[in-house]
Amino acid sequence: MMRSPLAPPTRLLLGPGPSPVDPAVLDALGKPVLGHLDPEFIRIMDETSHRLRQVFRTRNPLTFPVSGTGSAGMETALVNVLEPGDRIVIGVNGVFGARMADAAGRAGADVTIVEAAWGDPVNPEELGQAVRSVKPKAVGLVQAETSTGAASPVELVRREIGPSPLLIVDSVTGLGGMALEVDKWGIDVCFSGTQKCLSVPPGLAPITFSPRAAQTVADRKTPVQSWYLDVSMLRRYWEEGEGARAYHHTAPISMVYGLWEGLRLVLDEGLEERWARHREAGDFLQAELTDMGFKLFARRGYRLPQLTSVRLPKGVDDGLRGRLLNDFDIEIGGGLGEVAGKVWRIGLMGFGAKKSNVIRLVQSLRALI
Amino acid sequence: MMRSPLAPPTRLLLGPGPSPVDPAVLDALGKPVLGHLDPEFIRIMDETSHRLRQVFRTRNPLTFPVSGTGSAGMETALVNVLEPGDRIVIGVNGVFGARMADAAGRAGADVTIVEAAWGDPVNPEELGQAVRSVKPKAVGLVQAETSTGAASPVELVRREIGPSPLLIVDSVTGLGGMALEVDKWGIDVCFSGTQKCLSVPPGLAPITFSPRAAQTVADRKTPVQSWYLDVSMLRRYWEEGEGARAYHHTAPISMVYGLWEGLRLVLDEGLEERWARHREAGDFLQAELTDMGFKLFARRGYRLPQLTSVRLPKGVDDGLRGRLLNDFDIEIGGGLGEVAGKVWRIGLMGFGAKKSNVIRLVQSLRALI
Repeated sequence: MMRSPLAPPTRLLLGPGPSPVDPAVLDALGKPVLGHLDPEFIRIMDETSHRLRQVFRTRNPLTFPVSGTGSAGMETALVNVLEPGDRIVIGVNGVFGARMADAAGRAGADVTIVEAAWGDPVNPEELGQAVRSVKPKAVGLVQAETSTGAASPVELVRREIGPSPLLIVDSVTGLGGMALEVDKWGIDVCFSGTQKCLSVPPGLAPITFSPRAAQTVADRKTPVQSWYLDVSMLRRYWEEGEGARAYHHTAPISMVYGLWEGLRLVLDEGLEERWARHREAGDFLQAELTDMGFKLFARRGYRLPQLTSVRLPKGVDDGLRGRLLNDFDIEIGGGLGEVAGKVWRIGLMGFGAKKSNVIRLVQSLRALI
Repeated sequence: MMRSPLAPPTRLLLGPGPSPVDPAVLDALGKPVLGHLDPEFIRIMDETSHRLRQVFRTRNPLTFPVSGTGSAGMETALVNVLEPGDRIVIGVNGVFGARMADAAGRAGADVTIVEAAWGDPVNPEELGQAVRSVKPKAVGLVQAETSTGAASPVELVRREIGPSPLLIVDSVTGLGGMALEVDKWGIDVCFSGTQKCLSVPPGLAPITFSPRAAQTVADRKTPVQSWYLDVSMLRRYWEEGEGARAYHHTAPISMVYGLWEGLRLVLDEGLEERWARHREAGDFLQAELTDMGFKLFARRGYRLPQLTSVRLPKGVDDGLRGRLLNDFDIEIGGGLGEVAGKVWRIGLMGFGAKKSNVIRLVQSLRALI
């Protein structure tokens, strides 16, 4: 094989994503490209959807990867479910909830925001109150707020909002790294990204629609504003059965290979075992950082194991991240939005959720501080 | 390295895309993943944009790959330039022109279609007449209609429509395989895909905006309907200079590696040499198929070298494509839309545009017919 002269350095990716990629996934990316209508590729598509259902814990037939990154998954969820004038209530406790509200507004929806402080979960009772007053078509929230490291209790939210509104959940940073039960919790649309706890490079957005959500899309009175993300056409390519495999756009073949392989590794490990591994690694990191004088940013009881946010102690400058990258080849993330410069975000996601990585990070930080 | 058990067969991809991928590009896809804000990745981004400018023949600063396939590039062009109520004239001579009209309508534009027969180019004079009567903000057309194998004369279109309307060109199947001169021909927005004549797997859509088109986006009165494809935010991540590299969404790192490498191969070969190689291979194929009794579908003088469409002769069934795939590992494409079942589409794109591939195809066909 002719070698590419591209020679990126090998970083330990402990930021908010992308996460470290298993060598088997990198290997899968380089397999020979098939056509998007080749029966062999269609078999890989079917297996990918089947595996996604297991990881999402759902029986939804309409489960597939959107041909874009996690934010394309968010947009797909919103622009297909919402029509101009529809009401939606969105829980906002960080950048990604705000992004959801922005995208819903662009879809012409009437958006009611229920805010929580950065670092807090969204408040299920307040969402329930808003639903009773606004009577929205849908409720949206972020299960794992990547900007703050806070988890939100999705199951409780469904209980508080009642069975009526469609529940749209951003699990970009959740899927594969913490408990997520799409069917049991009554989630109607759930989307994620490949580059977090699935440990696949960025580029695809796994998504699943409940039969009720799929029916909502089928019953639309107006066309979906996006041609590229129109699920009424995408489903004819991704779903099995009669009339299926209708060409829509050329699927990103190599990325689907990578996802197929990444999901195999997730299921080989066992989903609950994987959640537990993230929990153990995250607890260990949070204890170590506390020992070093960092203050955990997210509220106790709602701290994501896979994404830890800390306030910088006195004397520690945000610029240290650059030295960590240059001198130790370790990437961690800075704060976004209102906590830029004040907070670090450290990810232990997927392949990277290992105590050995915590030790390497802590030792490197101790050498620098 | 742990090996992936994914074992797709090696096909010779002579359909309408994806095209055969150079081993060096597959190798690049598997390189270690960097963070999307890592200075080393930003260097790769800058080099990618720089190389794209050379391949597009443009000096446009705003030149980058959209994080989606070619159709996402189309949507990016339209939803950023058009605001609800804007008028656009679109030349439609196949599936992809019709797709552009569909997407423009979803963006709220008032669309005037100028139709040409399938297999014909769009008619520059008729586009000029429509422009004088409609006075649109933009004109759109497809340089290389992948559904019919017909080329349209972009330079002539600009001459006929005059300097006023923005000119939006779909060069998904054109870029890297035939003459395309973004600056010289006065194209304002040009988009492409990676999986055709660039010979990179599908997943990215190179796009370029002239300064005038970029200003049109900056001057919008309404927000872009798509959050994911909003160029006013994307440019802050992709463009060099002050205030740059603002996080928008996590870039598809591995696919950018692949594009970086694919563009290196294009420029190493020489762009004009590459156009000539496509022309030679395409002429050879078209002569061979004519010898075999196939009738070329696209109008003489407007036949794409990189995508040949033929009407099936009597006694040749569309089902033969399946046998070609199963028995000879060669993929060719069927007809789309109104010529489904009646036409084959044979691509000689990028790495695949070789006389040896023509010989392999023709010999295999002779064995089957």
